[in-house]
Amino acid sequence: MGLFHTNYIGMRDAFASMSKNQLVEQILESYKPIWALDHASSLLGWDVETYMPLQGSRSRGFAQAQLALMKQERVTSLDGMIERATKEGGLSDYEKGILRVIKRDLNYFKKVPPKLIEDLQRTSTEATVVWRDARKKSDYATFQSYLEKIIELKKQEADKLGYVGHPYNALLDMYEEELTINDVDRVFSALVPGLKNVLSKIIADKTYVSSHPLEAVEYEQQAMTRVNQETMRLLKMPEKTFRMDISTHPFTSSMSLEDVRVTTRYEGKSFRDSLYSTIHECGHAIYDLQVDPSLEYTPLSRAASLGIHESQSRFWENFVGRSREFTKLVYPILKKYLPFVSGYSEEEIYKYFNVVRPSLIRVEADEVTYNFHIVVRYEMEKALIGGKVSVSEIPSLWNDKMEEFLGVRPKNDAEGVLQDVHWSGGGMGYFPTYTLGNIIGGMIYNKIRKDLDIAKTVQRGELGLIKNWLREQIHKLGATYSPKELQTKIFGETYNPEHLLEYLEHKYLA
Amino acid sequence: MGLFHTNYIGMRDAFASMSKNQLVEQILESYKPIWALDHASSLLGWDVETYMPLQGSRSRGFAQAQLALMKQERVTSLDGMIERATKEGGLSDYEKGILRVIKRDLNYFKKVPPKLIEDLQRTSTEATVVWRDARKKSDYATFQSYLEKIIELKKQEADKLGYVGHPYNALLDMYEEELTINDVDRVFSALVPGLKNVLSKIIADKTYVSSHPLEAVEYEQQAMTRVNQETMRLLKMPEKTFRMDISTHPFTSSMSLEDVRVTTRYEGKSFRDSLYSTIHECGHAIYDLQVDPSLEYTPLSRAASLGIHESQSRFWENFVGRSREFTKLVYPILKKYLPFVSGYSEEEIYKYFNVVRPSLIRVEADEVTYNFHIVVRYEMEKALIGGKVSVSEIPSLWNDKMEEFLGVRPKNDAEGVLQDVHWSGGGMGYFPTYTLGNIIGGMIYNKIRKDLDIAKTVQRGELGLIKNWLREQIHKLGATYSPKELQTKIFGETYNPEHLLEYLEHKYLA
Repeated sequence: MGLFHTNYIGMRDAFASMSKNQLVEQILESYKPIWALDHASSLLGWDVETYMPLQGSRSRGFAQAQLALMKQERVTSLDGMIERATKEGGLSDYEKGILRVIKRDLNYFKKVPPKLIEDLQRTSTEATVVWRDARKKSDYATFQSYLEKIIELKKQEADKLGYVGHPYNALLDMYEEELTINDVDRVFSALVPGLKNVLSKIIADKTYVSSHPLEAVEYEQQAMTRVNQETMRLLKMPEKTFRMDISTHPFTSSMSLEDVRVTTRYEGKSFRDSLYSTIHECGHAIYDLQVDPSLEYTPLSRAASLGIHESQSRFWENFVGRSREFTKLVYPILKKYLPFVSGYSEEEIYKYFNVVRPSLIRVEADEVTYNFHIVVRYEMEKALIGGKVSVSEIPSLWNDKMEEFLGVRPKNDAEGVLQDVHWSGGGMGYFPTYTLGNIIGGMIYNKIRKDLDIAKTVQRGELGLIKNWLREQIHKLGATYSPKELQTKIFGETYNPEHLLEYLEHKYLA
Repeated sequence: MGLFHTNYIGMRDAFASMSKNQLVEQILESYKPIWALDHASSLLGWDVETYMPLQGSRSRGFAQAQLALMKQERVTSLDGMIERATKEGGLSDYEKGILRVIKRDLNYFKKVPPKLIEDLQRTSTEATVVWRDARKKSDYATFQSYLEKIIELKKQEADKLGYVGHPYNALLDMYEEELTINDVDRVFSALVPGLKNVLSKIIADKTYVSSHPLEAVEYEQQAMTRVNQETMRLLKMPEKTFRMDISTHPFTSSMSLEDVRVTTRYEGKSFRDSLYSTIHECGHAIYDLQVDPSLEYTPLSRAASLGIHESQSRFWENFVGRSREFTKLVYPILKKYLPFVSGYSEEEIYKYFNVVRPSLIRVEADEVTYNFHIVVRYEMEKALIGGKVSVSEIPSLWNDKMEEFLGVRPKNDAEGVLQDVHWSGGGMGYFPTYTLGNIIGGMIYNKIRKDLDIAKTVQRGELGLIKNWLREQIHKLGATYSPKELQTKIFGETYNPEHLLEYLEHKYLA
């Protein structure tokens, strides 16, 4: 730990001395109000999901739109400076990173006309309301025309942004910098057969179960809150820079490097969902909290990408959280607050945490079958944006794909194509980052074991050592490097699914 | 209630048709981002007091300063339009109000140099930290140099703003538009002898007690939360546009006309403090919630002034809340959740709610002695800004004044001059608005009884009728009129303390 600490301070000094370019300094000065607008917008968004009175949504939407316009104005005004700074030679990685991150925003605002941005915003706001109702009634027909409109607008957006090869590449890049269909196709062509193989062996082997009695057992919310709090203590979540609240859909929100918040959910049944939701979000929060303090108020005080961010939540949730050693750590806490747990051995709890079962709903999927849900969505999005299928064909295609990859077929669209909010909100190209997160999680798991005996470290509860490793390798850098650059630096390769497959095989079949 | 409702809609239509001036329409369009900045800033402030992690304060301060700069920039940019619009004839009250409110901000930014604003902000931020510690240790000496600096800066601010007569007039106007020393002197010269007279009679009479055993009784926070919730139901606080949280110093915060929030405090002893803090803040919230919806996103979607705002909280807290009739309404709730209340009759609870006792601490003062605390502070501020006394003389002067007005003398500065946060934060000229609130509360009490039998209305729990009256007379107008204009319209007079005195005499001595 001493070693890490020294390195850390060293890096911080390096950062502090890196910004020598006067133009970049000016850009950082002009970036301060943009940072403040992001800060405000984050808190406004967090509040919507946690405490805002119901009818506050109209004025909140108005305020968010105004803040977005102000941000757009300020980012656009940086154009000339960014262009000039880019032409200057001898920029440090830090300075290059600053320019790179702002350019991405700038590029979007320069290429996509305000009218299209507004259309997308309005349509997706309306579509989300319609979708919510359509899902409730399992009524795809009412949603179809909205989805058609959204696909049409996303195609226009891709055309405006420009792309090489396939229009979907333009959308992928919005969520994961430089990601292309070639990357994702390569990933899935190796991942899918590997996962199918692992899954069929797990099912045949029967060491891991496909259902567990605890999935039906109800818990008291107050007791479960204590379990989550104690679990966060295991994860050494800081008390003065971090907090947890409750929301229907758990998320992590970073206001600043000294104010990061997660939410969790309490559905009252099968306590595992609340527990792993908490660990997952804490994984995101640890990333946000460990960005180097010298990057505060700059465009680099954020994650490298959604895929890298998801790798952190998945690493803690699955690679650490669903291990035998972590189960051992958390078992006494469970017994203390949830009386019914005493009826189960530690091994039974471990099996409950690791039930493997092909299922219909993505957010309920286990770590083995999860990526099948993503490949279904990916193929659908690619075909829709590429104009290969029409929106009306989607439900039956969805069900066919589910059967192909998971061997289960939705009985209705609520448990099929209507289950996720993403498309209604215009989030097309987002889903693949979930699988990238799992894959990078595997790459981290493979790499960290060269420095740390993970099993022993977890068993001893020395989770701070893992946090230090992640901070040094990934977190402290913030968005200095693009996700591909970062992976190349750390792993010498990008998005390699083999490590995830190895991990799963070893865990479930060894 | 039907009558009020008709009037209300009528007024709303009138508002909608009032904005005919094209220049004013343009100003309102440019005001939208300013509204959004205020909205964000309100939520950021609310969060600091309620949920923000401790170490979030540094980045929150940074963000607030950036938002303030953006606001300043945008307000300043309206200068030309405001000037041109002012010159145009035939403006409606609504349009005049818009110009008046923006001009007040504009005037400040035009006259007070950025350097002075920054100095004031930095000094008061530092001074608040020092003050907190000084109060804890009752150590005026460490705070003195900071207070000197603040007085110096406030004098400079007054000079820059300009004034007629006394520099303190410039500061008074910042908190209560057009308020002058002449107004406040007139108020206190009538109020002080009247209050002294009432107080001495109450003490001699002994019908009202000077202490009560319930002041020492502890309560469960959860039970008290239920009491507050049921009390808010009595007040008919809306569920979808309003919420209550907990903070050390209770306050009301309006994010929009559809999102208003209060906080309350739970000190664990003497439940009256939590109850009346809740009612007080609900009084503020009712005002904010009843501004006419057509004023949303305009500069008029706020209160006419701090004094008018405080009149609403005081009216509900004291004139309604501490009445016999309200005690009757709340008594069953108290008995239900606070078991120890059953040992006291309704009359005893009423006396507990209305203990009258000259005391040292302003925030603990009853409605009879409260204004003495303000006159002490007012005389001090006037003398300090007028250069009549030095900061080093303040503690002993304070103690003398307390003895003069209240007959009690602080044993140390923590319970004397160091008790309030206002001065350390640069809030000089703010205190008088508390007394103005009490006085306007008296004026409302005098006026409303011509339309409503207040005692019967409260006894029947028909508090919605009172809310309607206040909405029609005051709330719906927002900041359309200055506080003096508004009072003249409603009462035909301004800041007349006689009605407060009459009310107190009648309540305590009849």
